[in-house]
Amino acid sequence: MNHKIRVLVWSEFRHEKENPKVAAIYPQGIHETIAQFLRKEKDLEVATAWLDQPDHGLSEEILAATDVLIWWGHKAHGEVADSTVQMIKNHVLEGMGFIALHSAHYSKIFKALMGTTCSLQWRESTDKERLWTIAPSHPIAAHLPQHFEIPTEEMYGEPFGIPEPEELIFISWFTGGEVFRSGATWRRGHGRVFYFRPGHETYPTYHQPEIQRVITNAVHWARPTVRIPDTCPNAQPLEPLPHDAEAAERPKEGFR
Amino acid sequence: MNHKIRVLVWSEFRHEKENPKVAAIYPQGIHETIAQFLRKEKDLEVATAWLDQPDHGLSEEILAATDVLIWWGHKAHGEVADSTVQMIKNHVLEGMGFIALHSAHYSKIFKALMGTTCSLQWRESTDKERLWTIAPSHPIAAHLPQHFEIPTEEMYGEPFGIPEPEELIFISWFTGGEVFRSGATWRRGHGRVFYFRPGHETYPTYHQPEIQRVITNAVHWARPTVRIPDTCPNAQPLEPLPHDAEAAERPKEGFR
Amino acid sequence: MNHKIRVLVWSEFRHEKENPKVAAIYPQGIHETIAQFLRKEKDLEVATAWLDQPDHGLSEEILAATDVLIWWGHKAHGEVADSTVQMIKNHVLEGMGFIALHSAHYSKIFKALMGTTCSLQWRESTDKERLWTIAPSHPIAAHLPQHFEIPTEEMYGEPFGIPEPEELIFISWFTGGEVFRSGATWRRGHGRVFYFRPGHETYPTYHQPEIQRVITNAVHWARPTVRIPDTCPNAQPLEPLPHDAEAAERPKEGFR
Amino acid sequence: MNHKIRVLVWSEFRHEKENPKVAAIYPQGIHETIAQFLRKEKDLEVATAWLDQPDHGLSEEILAATDVLIWWGHKAHGEVADSTVQMIKNHVLEGMGFIALHSAHYSKIFKALMGTTCSLQWRESTDKERLWTIAPSHPIAAHLPQHFEIPTEEMYGEPFGIPEPEELIFISWFTGGEVFRSGATWRRGHGRVFYFRPGHETYPTYHQPEIQRVITNAVHWARPTVRIPDTCPNAQPLEPLPHDAEAAERPKEGFR
Repeated sequence: MNHKIRVLVWSEFRHEKENPKVAAIYPQGIHETIAQFLRKEKDLEVATAWLDQPDHGLSEEILAATDVLIWWGHKAHGEVADSTVQMIKNHVLEGMGFIALHSAHYSKIFKALMGTTCSLQWRESTDKERLWTIAPSHPIAAHLPQHFEIPTEEMYGEPFGIPEPEELIFISWFTGGEVFRSGATWRRGHGRVFYFRPGHETYPTYHQPEIQRVITNAVHWARPTVRIPDTCPNAQPLEPLPHDAEAAERPKEGFR
Repeated sequence: MNHKIRVLVWSEFRHEKENPKVAAIYPQGIHETIAQFLRKEKDLEVATAWLDQPDHGLSEEILAATDVLIWWGHKAHGEVADSTVQMIKNHVLEGMGFIALHSAHYSKIFKALMGTTCSLQWRESTDKERLWTIAPSHPIAAHLPQHFEIPTEEMYGEPFGIPEPEELIFISWFTGGEVFRSGATWRRGHGRVFYFRPGHETYPTYHQPEIQRVITNAVHWARPTVRIPDTCPNAQPLEPLPHDAEAAERPKEGFR
Repeated sequence: MNHKIRVLVWSEFRHEKENPKVAAIYPQGIHETIAQFLRKEKDLEVATAWLDQPDHGLSEEILAATDVLIWWGHKAHGEVADSTVQMIKNHVLEGMGFIALHSAHYSKIFKALMGTTCSLQWRESTDKERLWTIAPSHPIAAHLPQHFEIPTEEMYGEPFGIPEPEELIFISWFTGGEVFRSGATWRRGHGRVFYFRPGHETYPTYHQPEIQRVITNAVHWARPTVRIPDTCPNAQPLEPLPHDAEAAERPKEGFR
Repeated sequence: MNHKIRVLVWSEFRHEKENPKVAAIYPQGIHETIAQFLRKEKDLEVATAWLDQPDHGLSEEILAATDVLIWWGHKAHGEVADSTVQMIKNHVLEGMGFIALHSAHYSKIFKALMGTTCSLQWRESTDKERLWTIAPSHPIAAHLPQHFEIPTEEMYGEPFGIPEPEELIFISWFTGGEVFRSGATWRRGHGRVFYFRPGHETYPTYHQPEIQRVITNAVHWARPTVRIPDTCPNAQPLEPLPHDAEAAERPKEGFR
């Protein structure tokens, strides 16, 4: 791949406008904080979009020119248009990488890609979260320690309603006694999907270096090698078929 | 499980009404042919439903009383109501088994459970299909030979747009030179999903003993051990949490 | 399967003889405590064996008549004969179920089946272990609560050097801050393998009802559907091959 | 990774010396033919080794300086020293990539990494092999067509005694009626493993561009991101543990 990896960071951008404490942590929105640390990487080209832009800041053209889409949503999942969800899904299945952050576990697009409830347990309190790097040689875990802590975070606990991850990379320990599969990957069509748990809006999680490292690694991991449009072709045989005496008579049904 | 396994066989039941040659093979519908061989099993209790019944013959009550749903559709996938698809999906995620047959690869419900395109190559011609039992000790392969043939079938060829199967049980060889992952399983939520390729409406495939054996085995394999409704609960800590001096001040956001 | 499930419980049976405190917990050996609660199940037929019996209490005949082998070893892994390990492995690959308990993660046979180091972190201290049931609908989790505790146990922590589990069923939380994939399954050949973490010899873990439930469930889950001996046959073609003008000349190499 | 990818191509190099027809195809050995096309890649540094060299041409130093090891063996698997197999295995588990070609399915090292029989069906005859690229967006499939043929090859047929592949990339169709999972990946420890079916010594398979492309791609895919030696450490707690009144009394057992 000769061009830079084109990353689009999307967030809801609502809490930041409505809640002064969230605004104090993410004054220009969570998407902008994420974009800022990604822009330090020379091989990344980073854009942003958010819910209240026209068409949520997304279009066929924009997604076709996006290699990896990062998604943060929380309280307005229902406001994302179904047609937008289908459009994103199509691009992921063609090869666009997709990174779902924190409460995006309940976004329409993540649930559509997983095919499951994506439900979990949760608690907003004073839990400390410690992430264990259980697949230390995975590219998403590059340069990360065996374990690292987030001083205070929302707790997400098991059972987490996802398909069995293809690669489980992080498991979280919480002070309150819970565990969670915090970093996991799946392939969907030609696209790579990564879910990463941390990032409640009331904590400065995306300012933390280890979290930035995980997301940066994940962008590199999720970049497509190729983009393959969907087809369901009628195929000619590659080998000779037996003669079919009844062929003229057999009912011929179009595939759909 | 003390009760019988309650199986519901659903089919589109359109080709049979419109095409005399299909009607000659499946005079009462594909669903009824499948139901008939399943009814020979003492531990199964078998019902049927089809597209043109009110509400497609499905309801919350019916699905709640169904252990395994078998689905055959082909040319009218688009006529299945989205609300019905969501209802079925919820039941699968709670534990109901789901068996997708042949062209049900393109049904709304199978695609929703997979999260992918489910596209493939296809050809209606004179191909012979030979299924190889690549996981001979899997319960779905019980009592089946190492390979078995269907004299003439529609060809489905790779690439097949599915997530990596958790268990790949059959691979098909076609005269025309193609191969296909013909029998594969996935877990989705608490439900077990099996896709089985054969069964084009213009061939007597579901009258063939090996095919009947696979579907019968799959019903037994897919029966739920338990049914667990979806929840996403706020959880109390199990261990003491540190005191939070700022808790009163911190912005409190409802989860959704 | 008409006969009872034939279970063989194997343990090292050394700590119990050398350490009075272990003997106080497992007076007849860990294997006998496990056998005792399994014998309460009507469909199980339970035998035991241990390291210091002739041939470690194992033979071709015994293993051929065993449906599920349970293995507990700790400090004498190296004393198990390599030929015994190969014999057990052959039986697992033919279909015999295998359940590795606690420190059997480092047994020769478990490592041979996994193909990996099976290393981990560990600590003998005052940790409490809480197991989270992350796959509550899996047969091995039947009748188990969402989480349950072992008052004191040896800590095993990630990273755990295993292949990605096919089904991850339990994750443990430890007081000291660690997490662990405590219950996981793999298929190897025609046999089913389950690893279950708890069970340090100095704690009464195998007397705890939840632990007994897991092991009892696992025995039922791991029972073989069929037993298939290994072969690598020279196969005749099923379809006509092109004539080979050079066949007489081409060098013919035996497979091995 | 700044240095070149260091590839070591190992082959048995026996057929070539004993059979003039094999020698005509691979005059300097299969390893040398593979090395030659790999040497055309600027980012690869390619060395070779073979069975009859001292220590099979392998040592701790050589493997520590190898990023990806390619292995071709056929009739002398038993002559590879067990200590060498263990040494290679250790390096793979630490991160070294491993590519097993054709009859290396039965090599000691591949079987040790898989934990299974790796058995299959086979036939030396006039079969044509057609490989279907079922995961066209996988890096190992880059620049490859949807399907490609080998004019004549030894047939390998299912069932193939491997663990479920993590990624299935190629499935083969054979004239004689068989199918085979011809390209598959697994992670073992920190190393990536790829098995690729084609390459019987009596056919010029490794001279074919598509085959060379697959192997070249696989080398790039299998390169380690990091190399992590095996440890099984005693770990200090990260969180305060409860006081243990009985600690002095409890029997203390060393881990091994």
